[in-house]
Amino acid sequence: MEKKITVLPGDGIGPEVVASAVRVLQVIGKRFNHTFHLGYATIGGAAIDQHNNPLPDETIEMCEGSDAILLGAVGGPKWDNNPPELRPEKGLLRIRKHFDLFANLRPVKAFPSLLDASPLKREVAENVDLMIVRELTGGVYFGEPRMRTENGAIDTTVYSTAEVERIVENAFELARLRGGKLCSVDKANVLETSRLWREVVEAKKKDYPDVRVEHNLVDSVAMKLITNPGHYDVVVTENMFGDILSDEASVITGSLGVLPSASIRGDNFGLYEPVHGSAPEIAGRGVANPAATILSVAMMLQYSFGLLEEAAEIERAVSAVFDDGYFTADLARDGGRTLSTNEWTDKVINEIDTSF
Amino acid sequence: MEKKITVLPGDGIGPEVVASAVRVLQVIGKRFNHTFHLGYATIGGAAIDQHNNPLPDETIEMCEGSDAILLGAVGGPKWDNNPPELRPEKGLLRIRKHFDLFANLRPVKAFPSLLDASPLKREVAENVDLMIVRELTGGVYFGEPRMRTENGAIDTTVYSTAEVERIVENAFELARLRGGKLCSVDKANVLETSRLWREVVEAKKKDYPDVRVEHNLVDSVAMKLITNPGHYDVVVTENMFGDILSDEASVITGSLGVLPSASIRGDNFGLYEPVHGSAPEIAGRGVANPAATILSVAMMLQYSFGLLEEAAEIERAVSAVFDDGYFTADLARDGGRTLSTNEWTDKVINEIDTSF
Ligand SMILES: CC(C)[C@H](C(=O)O)[C@@H](O)C(=O)O
Ligand SMILES: CC(C)[C@H](C(=O)O)[C@@H](O)C(=O)O
Repeated sequence: MEKKITVLPGDGIGPEVVASAVRVLQVIGKRFNHTFHLGYATIGGAAIDQHNNPLPDETIEMCEGSDAILLGAVGGPKWDNNPPELRPEKGLLRIRKHFDLFANLRPVKAFPSLLDASPLKREVAENVDLMIVRELTGGVYFGEPRMRTENGAIDTTVYSTAEVERIVENAFELARLRGGKLCSVDKANVLETSRLWREVVEAKKKDYPDVRVEHNLVDSVAMKLITNPGHYDVVVTENMFGDILSDEASVITGSLGVLPSASIRGDNFGLYEPVHGSAPEIAGRGVANPAATILSVAMMLQYSFGLLEEAAEIERAVSAVFDDGYFTADLARDGGRTLSTNEWTDKVINEIDTSF
Repeated sequence: MEKKITVLPGDGIGPEVVASAVRVLQVIGKRFNHTFHLGYATIGGAAIDQHNNPLPDETIEMCEGSDAILLGAVGGPKWDNNPPELRPEKGLLRIRKHFDLFANLRPVKAFPSLLDASPLKREVAENVDLMIVRELTGGVYFGEPRMRTENGAIDTTVYSTAEVERIVENAFELARLRGGKLCSVDKANVLETSRLWREVVEAKKKDYPDVRVEHNLVDSVAMKLITNPGHYDVVVTENMFGDILSDEASVITGSLGVLPSASIRGDNFGLYEPVHGSAPEIAGRGVANPAATILSVAMMLQYSFGLLEEAAEIERAVSAVFDDGYFTADLARDGGRTLSTNEWTDKVINEIDTSF
């Protein structure tokens, strides 16, 4: 297989973790006989510095010519006081919208050897294996009007039936491939957009008799994600609720530094990035955890290229390195060995190489 | 002191826990020489059944003639398929709006003897003592337009500068009386209303040089509430974020059944209710935990009547009964004794009575 990937290292630790993930990707290519052509472009703060634009036209063009995008992270104190249009995260919002990446997939799965780092009791966190499916290109993030008024401000949450349908279908399909359970999250006791959302889920569920569906209110899910996270399989929700709940869910297993994400659309094109941020405070020191970005590459192989075996091999290798007791500084623990970003990546690569 | 209180038992376990709380209130009256005049009225499902209206005019009138309101809980499967205007929670939304109860205070404090019930590790949860201040009468809950459109639906988040100012002031005042720390939560990297919110907090902080202020994004707070809840003192946020975060925070200490709330406005008038819901599945069996409603009475004494000593006495008594190893079924544990709602309330009353 031959694929073109645009690599957007971004800011902070972005370039470091992306470099690691690219090394792993190339090893997978070698082992499984695929050719991955990489092109590099800028986004976020780096793009503001070079092009005065958090998502330059050159970047969009290169992405348009690619099969998938690998992103590090954006943002940092340097740009915190910029006007809204010249802030790093604007690049992120614009790339999502431009490429219509409406489905953000965030798997959260416990790695047994990382559970000590969880704020939750072991017995609460240990069987967690869920996927949050967040609508990513609609809702209050993009609704108009959004503006200052004479005496205040307004934002608008907008959803079309079609926008809800496509994300809900996506979630049903994922539930079918996973544990067959779907929790749809809304605030139907207050919001009109939530009532629409709930109706769409009710209508669609007839097409998926093999999927068990529950509706739950966002406040109630915010509780249950902590008291009983093992209850969930696929969780689908709108953009703003998804932003909050997926970040909440990311701390369950004690492994924020290892969580990947995919932002996809109907075809196979997608953007893959770690859940964690740009962590400017540790950037450039070679201590960042590359696991989340490496696992984002696994998601790319799975969702954009349909390379399931290759994706599983990366997941297996990452898990094995943790089980062998190797961690980066963020996960340092008694009885484990603390490695640098590159050393830890070497372990993963050795694991893949020697298992030919 | 002489005070008039409207009691709204509501649905499910509401009547049971309210009966307990009223008993405790009367004992406090006797001990400290206050007279509390109680009037009973309906709200929620009970009011729909009797008056076809989740907030009947009679109820509003009685509340208008009172100094405070004590509420049990509303809702249940019986009314789940009613049209929006005839649903129990509409009574709640309307009473908040009618009385302009713009500040919802939700304290979350660890009871050492309840920590085993927390999903969080003891060392994470044990020093928690925070207060979420949620704006309760604005934002997307009441903003217009909210409706179906030709091809979808919209909701509108609206805040006036004045609405933000009054809740932010309220939170600053509370922070000053507590630990002197205020975390303001918004989504200023996306929302116009959040940028307004942040500006108001920045402007107000000049009047409170003794309060340390931080701004934090809602997704980030959703994480940190779980990884480091001990970090927080007062947390202030808008209505929808507050709904989610306060429910999330309510599970930290393993004691949802003991969390009280106050919904107040500028003067001393307020509505006090437990955080938990109407729990229809256990209603009428005499097993509900009355602690949250009893502690809501303590908040009433403190915030509406300025009776600090009386409020502290209730809190002390509740804590002592837990420390003595008495729990209702929801908190049943090895080494503890499980009591009914009434038996547990008796213990609290004995504790208050014998400590004259
Ligand atoms: C940076 C920000 C705009 C973004 C979002 O809210 O979507 C981030 O929190 C995320 O979840 O990717
Ligand atoms: C019942 C519902 C409308 C209400 C809300 O969202 O405000 C409830 O969740 C609460 O927090 O009191």
